[in-house]
Amino acid sequence: MAEFKHRVGIRGSAAQVYELLTTDTGLSQWWTTDTHGAGGVGSIIEFRFGGDGPDFEVIELVPNQRVRWRHSGDMPTAWKDSEILFEMYEDGKQTILNFSHYNWAQSDEYLAHCSTKWGVFMMSIKSCIEAGRGQPFPDDVHIDFDE
Amino acid sequence: MAEFKHRVGIRGSAAQVYELLTTDTGLSQWWTTDTHGAGGVGSIIEFRFGGDGPDFEVIELVPNQRVRWRHSGDMPTAWKDSEILFEMYEDGKQTILNFSHYNWAQSDEYLAHCSTKWGVFMMSIKSCIEAGRGQPFPDDVHIDFDE
Repeated sequence: MAEFKHRVGIRGSAAQVYELLTTDTGLSQWWTTDTHGAGGVGSIIEFRFGGDGPDFEVIELVPNQRVRWRHSGDMPTAWKDSEILFEMYEDGKQTILNFSHYNWAQSDEYLAHCSTKWGVFMMSIKSCIEAGRGQPFPDDVHIDFDE
Repeated sequence: MAEFKHRVGIRGSAAQVYELLTTDTGLSQWWTTDTHGAGGVGSIIEFRFGGDGPDFEVIELVPNQRVRWRHSGDMPTAWKDSEILFEMYEDGKQTILNFSHYNWAQSDEYLAHCSTKWGVFMMSIKSCIEAGRGQPFPDDVHIDFDE
């Protein structure tokens, strides 16, 4: 199975990062403003990008340390059965946020596209905490002229 | 072996992208301003970031389509024996640039860091062509407080 990873350092606490990953209000500040359903393990979060978008089931939560989601539903097809893991820890001067999106059936151009775009959204999380403002859809940074 | 990939779309020609990947002048506009040695197959490019930095040997060139480098020397250790491949094609409205850095011995936090940072430099290539100005070291976008 294929995967990709990212890692950023954020001037803020692990609790601040965790909040951005586990609440509708937090998620809507950096990924898409149209986010609903975030809650405890078993909740299904609906992320919408101008109408459609992926759903993820929350499958693991360790406060201020670890958030894991399993893709739910059919959209996008290439994400079926994939999972996303966020892990965070404070290292003294910053909170390190590790991200991985794994269990992809294949490593193709769409995976490469998503890798770059997730990197952009990691920077949106960083900006959200450090500058007080992220860049969630529909004001996200575009990486090509098809999206 | 581990790897990571990126993909961006750039409003410009494949020839413009190829130029940025194969000449000292081009490379110094988006990765590091201290770049020397770019040339034909067999040339070794020295990329320096405030003193030290990696060397890469050019091992394949297909004009306006493909550029491949093999890591040379010892720095950074985790990049030993790794290769970087850039592939580009015009799709009518833009040039798609695919990137991969592969043959890593392990998939760890440093790989995740490099994945995010390469994504930032892909955006620097895009900006170089579309806005006339990239963000090479020492004015690169920082992704944490250790670099």
